[in-house]
Amino acid sequence: MADEVVLLDFWPSPFGMRVRIALAEKGIKYEYREEDLKNKSPLLLQMNPVHKKIPVLIHKGKPICESLIAVQYIDEVWSDTNPLLPSHPYQRAQARFWADYVDKKIYDLGGKIWQTKGEEKEAAKKEFTEALKLLEEELGDKAYFGGDNLGFLDIAFVPFYTWFRGYEPFGILNIESECPKFIAWANRCLQKESVAKSVPDQDKIHEFIVDIRKKLGIE
Amino acid sequence: MADEVVLLDFWPSPFGMRVRIALAEKGIKYEYREEDLKNKSPLLLQMNPVHKKIPVLIHKGKPICESLIAVQYIDEVWSDTNPLLPSHPYQRAQARFWADYVDKKIYDLGGKIWQTKGEEKEAAKKEFTEALKLLEEELGDKAYFGGDNLGFLDIAFVPFYTWFRGYEPFGILNIESECPKFIAWANRCLQKESVAKSVPDQDKIHEFIVDIRKKLGIE
Repeated sequence: MADEVVLLDFWPSPFGMRVRIALAEKGIKYEYREEDLKNKSPLLLQMNPVHKKIPVLIHKGKPICESLIAVQYIDEVWSDTNPLLPSHPYQRAQARFWADYVDKKIYDLGGKIWQTKGEEKEAAKKEFTEALKLLEEELGDKAYFGGDNLGFLDIAFVPFYTWFRGYEPFGILNIESECPKFIAWANRCLQKESVAKSVPDQDKIHEFIVDIRKKLGIE
Repeated sequence: MADEVVLLDFWPSPFGMRVRIALAEKGIKYEYREEDLKNKSPLLLQMNPVHKKIPVLIHKGKPICESLIAVQYIDEVWSDTNPLLPSHPYQRAQARFWADYVDKKIYDLGGKIWQTKGEEKEAAKKEFTEALKLLEEELGDKAYFGGDNLGFLDIAFVPFYTWFRGYEPFGILNIESECPKFIAWANRCLQKESVAKSVPDQDKIHEFIVDIRKKLGIE
């Protein structure tokens, strides 16, 4: 079946990780193709001519672009195994809302923590911690955002934890004490085989960030 | 049933229009509450504490925020009448992809056309026309993006046409000759009662834009 499902991806991409975890949760075999983003493959340019970005899920020759859309597609096509979105429309809307929040807040703020300095960095750190606390409230006493099992929002959010661990040394964020439920949730996710095998080692993400900071001239 | 469904909205909002059209397509009666965005109601702040933005759809006392999420919610709850998203997962993914494209491109570029000057404005005009042409390609020979009937992407996109008409005099875009299929599609949508009664008069949007330009000091 490997020729049926192909993923164009780049190993440190948190967006790519989402699709990898969703495919793993559904137990789908696929062909992983690593992209060189400085020299994008003709297939990537053909499959995502609009944004020219990874990840692109290719199923039966047809591309599905944008990670959250791809995760929903996977959930809808392979609906018999491990449902990712809740069945009730209101809970589905909530899961979509918070996944959108992760896209709008966590990604940008995380980037500012390791790419900026001074006031901008401090403001990002404060806002980042507040955003994590909001997400902790949404989690409540559940094991996962999806309830007893990993769900859509868990998959949307947990890849950013591996990044967060990678840039934490540049941020001094005190997340361990300020957001203990977030840390506990992330560790629970990482114990899942579907997550563990889909995200890179945190040290590698750290090295990747160190390398970009050097290239950008950030001390 | 009006007490069951409430919409917190602001009349010129293209995002609010999306929810209004979706509710009209489904034939749902609702209470419309106009918000003063300079003095937001306690209900808005309570129902959307995260973004504090309209539109907010309130159903049985529970808020659904973010317009595309609200439209999907409406489609899932009132699934018997006029389906908005296609039934096939791949077509659903495509509709979501292009609705996301409208959010990422059309809204921002449209704003730049009437809010900026010189090179920035000219670049936005060029990119805006290119974006419309891509959407025209996606439309193809269909009457609507949804096929024979108005669908998710039509609802996501058509509100921006009323805005486009409102700022067209400041842009000189030649859309009529460059994107005739876009114009024909928009006019088809506007002939639908669900759309016609959900979007404001284009002259009013124009006056609204003129007013903001004055306040911003743009000549």
